[in-house]
Amino acid sequence: MPEERGGTVQKLKLTIAYDGTDFHGFQIQNGRHVRTVQGVLQATLKRVLGHPVSVVGAGRTDAGVHARQQVVAFEAAAAIPEERWVRLLNHRLPRDIVVLSAEKAAASFHPRFDAVRRVYRYAIETAPVPDIFTRRFRTHFTKRLNIPPIKRAAAHLIGTHDFTSFSAAKARVKHRVRTLETIDIVTEGTAIYCYFAGDGFLQHMVRIMTGTLIDVGLGKLSPADMPRILAAKDRSCAGRTMPPEGLTLWEVQYQ
Amino acid sequence: MPEERGGTVQKLKLTIAYDGTDFHGFQIQNGRHVRTVQGVLQATLKRVLGHPVSVVGAGRTDAGVHARQQVVAFEAAAAIPEERWVRLLNHRLPRDIVVLSAEKAAASFHPRFDAVRRVYRYAIETAPVPDIFTRRFRTHFTKRLNIPPIKRAAAHLIGTHDFTSFSAAKARVKHRVRTLETIDIVTEGTAIYCYFAGDGFLQHMVRIMTGTLIDVGLGKLSPADMPRILAAKDRSCAGRTMPPEGLTLWEVQYQ
Repeated sequence: MPEERGGTVQKLKLTIAYDGTDFHGFQIQNGRHVRTVQGVLQATLKRVLGHPVSVVGAGRTDAGVHARQQVVAFEAAAAIPEERWVRLLNHRLPRDIVVLSAEKAAASFHPRFDAVRRVYRYAIETAPVPDIFTRRFRTHFTKRLNIPPIKRAAAHLIGTHDFTSFSAAKARVKHRVRTLETIDIVTEGTAIYCYFAGDGFLQHMVRIMTGTLIDVGLGKLSPADMPRILAAKDRSCAGRTMPPEGLTLWEVQYQ
Repeated sequence: MPEERGGTVQKLKLTIAYDGTDFHGFQIQNGRHVRTVQGVLQATLKRVLGHPVSVVGAGRTDAGVHARQQVVAFEAAAAIPEERWVRLLNHRLPRDIVVLSAEKAAASFHPRFDAVRRVYRYAIETAPVPDIFTRRFRTHFTKRLNIPPIKRAAAHLIGTHDFTSFSAAKARVKHRVRTLETIDIVTEGTAIYCYFAGDGFLQHMVRIMTGTLIDVGLGKLSPADMPRILAAKDRSCAGRTMPPEGLTLWEVQYQ
């Protein structure tokens, strides 16, 4: 927490978007001098405020993963009016991070712990050649996918489960039970969008679920295999981890 | 022209797309070691074919300008089947150039001289903050624009005119008479798209026409000023040159 100057320390909540292509993920990596969203935000805020700032995010997106709506918070010891923040920061931030809105938050507000719902989108481009306008946000995958079994398989994943089979083996978390509320599979032209909404997601969980659903779409797995894969609690039973470019943190919701 | 090996020199016509953000334009710049579309294509083709290749394009897009459909041609002394070119090149090209199609062409085919119609699109994003998914292809412009006068002004530009007032002063060309067939102004959500179709375009012509139409939309110029600006044949009478990111070579048509 910054030293109080004249007693005015204000917590700010920002909703931001970023193109993750040229970032090594959201979170600063101790000891590694790589470009991260948190690092760029903290450096920009330090220049604006004149004091070091610690930025906390709602979700730690991995390298190459994008955000349409990520929520971050920080404490500012300078009295900058709420309505000036958006313009002030967008003027100074690199073009691949955009501040969508800024508002004052309660001192106790925590973007990660207070979030009640997160939505991620995984986007697949199925055209024979990649589309130049959307290539940064869609994974190019040209093998023919059968959509109805994908939807039936997705239905098996909805609910409260131990998602160990669908999380990075290395992930260090206390428990791996999460509630997946909805999965929507939407085809639009040559794109397939998979929207996953839930209370929280383990590392790589959306990318592994999508990779497993793709194996169903290819006929390598059947929808009826899903309960078995969940029950195994073994990463090696699920499908591949899809590449990061197709993944976007779509929305974070609070009470 | 490459040396003939066994007598089979084949002219190939490629339709390509590119994200111009990270290119210093289409054309190789003599003496400057900068990344160009032509340079990347020639280097890739040389590796594939084993002989130097000269690539000719239909339009010399400037630095930062994109192409949805650009046409290029080159001569290949290796006998690679027509249908293999797309996959072969997309596998080797950087992700910001995509080959959409490849076909054999007559030995006399010239992408620039044989083109009968070109379409360019200038895209403007009017939302208060830039959109992260489309920012590379739209110019962010938030001042309120009045669309009906823009459409009336555009109508004055259609036809065969000397477009000196709407071309880069430095452009070296014999004459500056071009035929503009249509200008379509389309609003879609927070985007404004301006499509310009004609037989040919002078350097910066689309960007200066768009900048002038924007001055009309802001009320700084009126539609009735257009004939006067055309007649002046003086670059300083027209509006600003809009930045390159909003411009895309949309289509090139042949007989």
